[in-house]
Amino acid sequence: MENLKLTLCYDGSEYHGWQRQENAMTVQQRVEEALSRVVKQSVTVLGCSRTDAGVHAREYVCNTHVITSVPDDKMPYALNALLPDDICVTSCRRVPHEFHARFDTVAKEYCYTLCNQPHKDPFSVKYAWHYPYALDFEAMKRACEDLVGTYDCTVFEAAGSDTKGTRVRSIYKVELTKEGNFIRFRICANGYLYNMVRIMMGTLVSVGNGKLSADCIPMLIERKDRRLAGITAAPQGLCLTKVWYKKEDWCR
Amino acid sequence: MENLKLTLCYDGSEYHGWQRQENAMTVQQRVEEALSRVVKQSVTVLGCSRTDAGVHAREYVCNTHVITSVPDDKMPYALNALLPDDICVTSCRRVPHEFHARFDTVAKEYCYTLCNQPHKDPFSVKYAWHYPYALDFEAMKRACEDLVGTYDCTVFEAAGSDTKGTRVRSIYKVELTKEGNFIRFRICANGYLYNMVRIMMGTLVSVGNGKLSADCIPMLIERKDRRLAGITAAPQGLCLTKVWYKKEDWCR
Repeated sequence: MENLKLTLCYDGSEYHGWQRQENAMTVQQRVEEALSRVVKQSVTVLGCSRTDAGVHAREYVCNTHVITSVPDDKMPYALNALLPDDICVTSCRRVPHEFHARFDTVAKEYCYTLCNQPHKDPFSVKYAWHYPYALDFEAMKRACEDLVGTYDCTVFEAAGSDTKGTRVRSIYKVELTKEGNFIRFRICANGYLYNMVRIMMGTLVSVGNGKLSADCIPMLIERKDRRLAGITAAPQGLCLTKVWYKKEDWCR
Repeated sequence: MENLKLTLCYDGSEYHGWQRQENAMTVQQRVEEALSRVVKQSVTVLGCSRTDAGVHAREYVCNTHVITSVPDDKMPYALNALLPDDICVTSCRRVPHEFHARFDTVAKEYCYTLCNQPHKDPFSVKYAWHYPYALDFEAMKRACEDLVGTYDCTVFEAAGSDTKGTRVRSIYKVELTKEGNFIRFRICANGYLYNMVRIMMGTLVSVGNGKLSADCIPMLIERKDRRLAGITAAPQGLCLTKVWYKKEDWCR
């Protein structure tokens, strides 16, 4: 029995997220179907995170325990021949039996893209949230800096989530950049509550349009009240861009 | 009667090109349908060029003679409310009656994008030609420079084209750049023969993979034989990026 670590890249537009569901197509189902055809056995693939419908991934990691003699460097070609164009396996590696794509993550990076111009951009409709009104980028940038730290993230969690255990997360790094009419929010944290990045982005937009002040973040974190934060930004702007693991070696 | 100059941006993936056709959806048909609903009369929109199925445009210009009292700055909003997400009107301007979007062009710029990596990139499947083999970028760049000039472009014209008149075109500027795994070919010319940019790109790829030498271009131009050039690169990599007109004022 091998433990294969697969790295994927996918356009989530046509899927109901990563996780298998009844009556709706998901990325996990597509990958499991392709893999089971290649290794000729039924398989379960463990993903590094659940992503929502319409959310994308440039580097998504999953693992699976299978019996196979297909070499690591041939596996992506075998799988890509069976996968649709919107899902691509970029690498396969045999890893120690104990490796678990979800439980062993130490950090994940997401990028959220905002398209800030009067009219929609046909090329980014599925990859960015179109926000047509003026935004004070500098105010957003100042607010963004206060998101770094280790704190209870309840204010940035979707109402009605069933998080078990602590809601404290460590946000290691954030970055807000502007390139033409596109604003990108990058965040690296050890974990995320449900819809956390999208609510943070909605909150930064509220700062940008003046509904919230540039120094509101510490107060929001302190108050722990979801209703005080901004709206949940649209799913298609979100993309999982990198995953780090406990052992340096597992990250390759 | 007003003469409206409309500037569009469109993702051509779902269309059979610009020009109206029986039994196939085109960009022209979508724009005419939206405009005729706004101005409540049947309209014909004259485009700056025919684009092929799957080809995109970041800046496409067309004009139309209509009776309307909708102000120029309101027209894009009125049209975009009726157009699908993959077509966007970015500006509308009343221009002199004699302006013709096609006949009055003096130059057009196209950009062709190549994705040069082993596996497909799910995010650029519809916007780039995926070429998985090694390419000598420096050789391509050297060959590319020889494309500038005024000459008979027959070697870069699709077989069986029914071009009337001269096949001499002036290529003012070319540029080949590399950013990560993406190679971009930009070309600005006073006119183009059928499939010209795609055949030029296919020829540069033949230089990159060694089938043609880096100094082959002058010979190819001289020989005027389509069979000596490279293949016609896939349509989805092509995008019309800019159009210039006779009078400076019409370009705005």
